[in-house]
Amino acid sequence: MVFVSDIPTRDMTIPGFIPVVPAGGVGSRLWPLSRPERPKFLIDLLGTGATLIQATVSRLAPLGTELLIVTGERHAPAVSQQLPDVPAANIVTEPSPRDSMAAIALAAALIEQRHGERIMGSFAADHVIPDADAFRAVVATAAEAARTGKVVTIGIAPTEPSSAFGYIHAGAPLADAPGAFEVQAFTEKPDTETAASMLAAGGYSWNAGMFVVSTSVLLGHLARLQPALESGVRQIAAAWDGPERAEVLARVWPTLTTIAIDHAIAEPVAAEGGVAMVPASFAWDDVGDFDSLAGLLRPGPDGAVRIGRDAPISLVDAPGAVVVGGTKPVAVVGIADAVVVETDEAILVLGRASAQRVKDVELP
Amino acid sequence: MVFVSDIPTRDMTIPGFIPVVPAGGVGSRLWPLSRPERPKFLIDLLGTGATLIQATVSRLAPLGTELLIVTGERHAPAVSQQLPDVPAANIVTEPSPRDSMAAIALAAALIEQRHGERIMGSFAADHVIPDADAFRAVVATAAEAARTGKVVTIGIAPTEPSSAFGYIHAGAPLADAPGAFEVQAFTEKPDTETAASMLAAGGYSWNAGMFVVSTSVLLGHLARLQPALESGVRQIAAAWDGPERAEVLARVWPTLTTIAIDHAIAEPVAAEGGVAMVPASFAWDDVGDFDSLAGLLRPGPDGAVRIGRDAPISLVDAPGAVVVGGTKPVAVVGIADAVVVETDEAILVLGRASAQRVKDVELP
Repeated sequence: MVFVSDIPTRDMTIPGFIPVVPAGGVGSRLWPLSRPERPKFLIDLLGTGATLIQATVSRLAPLGTELLIVTGERHAPAVSQQLPDVPAANIVTEPSPRDSMAAIALAAALIEQRHGERIMGSFAADHVIPDADAFRAVVATAAEAARTGKVVTIGIAPTEPSSAFGYIHAGAPLADAPGAFEVQAFTEKPDTETAASMLAAGGYSWNAGMFVVSTSVLLGHLARLQPALESGVRQIAAAWDGPERAEVLARVWPTLTTIAIDHAIAEPVAAEGGVAMVPASFAWDDVGDFDSLAGLLRPGPDGAVRIGRDAPISLVDAPGAVVVGGTKPVAVVGIADAVVVETDEAILVLGRASAQRVKDVELP
Repeated sequence: MVFVSDIPTRDMTIPGFIPVVPAGGVGSRLWPLSRPERPKFLIDLLGTGATLIQATVSRLAPLGTELLIVTGERHAPAVSQQLPDVPAANIVTEPSPRDSMAAIALAAALIEQRHGERIMGSFAADHVIPDADAFRAVVATAAEAARTGKVVTIGIAPTEPSSAFGYIHAGAPLADAPGAFEVQAFTEKPDTETAASMLAAGGYSWNAGMFVVSTSVLLGHLARLQPALESGVRQIAAAWDGPERAEVLARVWPTLTTIAIDHAIAEPVAAEGGVAMVPASFAWDDVGDFDSLAGLLRPGPDGAVRIGRDAPISLVDAPGAVVVGGTKPVAVVGIADAVVVETDEAILVLGRASAQRVKDVELP
């Protein structure tokens, strides 16, 4: 599916480049809109007519001759249905979640098995990037940097001292990779004060979990740092397109180490000087909670932000209301910055400033 | 329907006394629980197993040999169904709402038509009085005072300087009516400051709209003050139990003056010295809004007050939550004193301090 705004203004195909989209994670701070059976990436969160994974694929498709999705068995049918232009062979189904390293390494091994070495770029299925052209230009720069043998990440220019993201600490420009910088370290999510002092010091950008790297470089690091994981995904990839896929997958997949790519590759390789960063100034949002979601949308004439909802709203002394989903009329009286979410399964009433705490809701 | 707590501890029948229950008003501050087609008096608001009109009738029934309900055509079937022990002849149906004076005067005229002069007592269908025995004792005192020819009201001892009620300003005790006082004036709902100074001055009680009076005294005042209204209800009452009821009702009812008993009788007769007040110290609540409703109920172990609801609730940083109705799980996150109401028709999210403003909700 390609939207008018996503049609590239020039040919942006990157030679030998294959985008990979790991589609996992529930988005538990967007409950009850997102739920285990209806994760964030399958929802048209912004009311644009495209789900987040559809928008992600539209953004990436022009960059390669093909594209891989890695997702869980439970969601593969919905992913196929939402992406009719992606061939079934390019939707890689995990039998169970084993975190991002297994998913991305399997994609790398499968690409090598099918095509030989390629530059791959891994981008989450549920992030929002309105300016697709700017995004693609940065990915092209990152792909060139990846040809020098680096693991390349994309650093998002921070717009505030957020405590919701990890940060990338960049160093000097790389001589052989125009537009790229060496990465000194990745940092965990800081508190807001620490984030503010990092922003004041300069050289820090948000880690959006985007990685552009040669498949052989990635698998080479993995063979060194997580050898069992590397040999496991190689075995699975070798059997993938043959009659033994099910048997090998059932036998090997459960043995793979459950680890994030950040811990398995990004952090240790950065410490060795093997990671580069391309800075990006495009707007980016991981739509982590209802506060950030509401911030991406414009209120109507009555002051209410509506998400996936047409039913009537009445506000009485209720500035900043956000009303999500549902078919019943909703009235908000005497509460500022209230978020009201109705789904078929549950009702959430939230103070916007507490959006991160939605993950603490405990309901059967 | 009689509940154990309402069984009088002794015979409290008041000779010649007939209770009248005007059952009107929507309770617009309890929307969407109450609605035009489902007014407050038809709802089991406190979760006791009895609707407010059932509890009202249980409280009053032991005082008389019979009892009259006056209600709108729209609600008569539900009233009959909820009160199977009240004969159809005692449910008086108004073709259209014409305020409290027409309703109470028609009841008075019908009682005189059927029985001759009686002492009547008019009590709203949707008030809450937990101590039925104390209530009945006060009504008995008021009925004795009414035999002296006064219009007698019951004054509720204020527990706070409320701006939600009108006040009764009492004077000296009446020599010929033990327990009763002369009424100097009725006052409109004051602001909270004025209410506080009234309470400090003393002699003021809440006007709960309860009137105990001889039918002939009431109709006599009416003949003087609103003669057309008096002759109209006399005409209707004369035809009520015969074949011409429908014709007379259709012809005369629409001509009756629409006026509250307070303005038609209570205020002008008080100015003439014709109104008495019996003070009452029993707990009384008109359950005017969700704040007062919640105040009548106890929170569960999780801190939430539940009204008409069994479905799960999850509270995260949400002290003082009140959750009303509905079958979906409800989570409240990061808002104090939130009231969440779900009905089949609508959802209300309310800050408890703004409970009075629910009447300003505008929804189709």
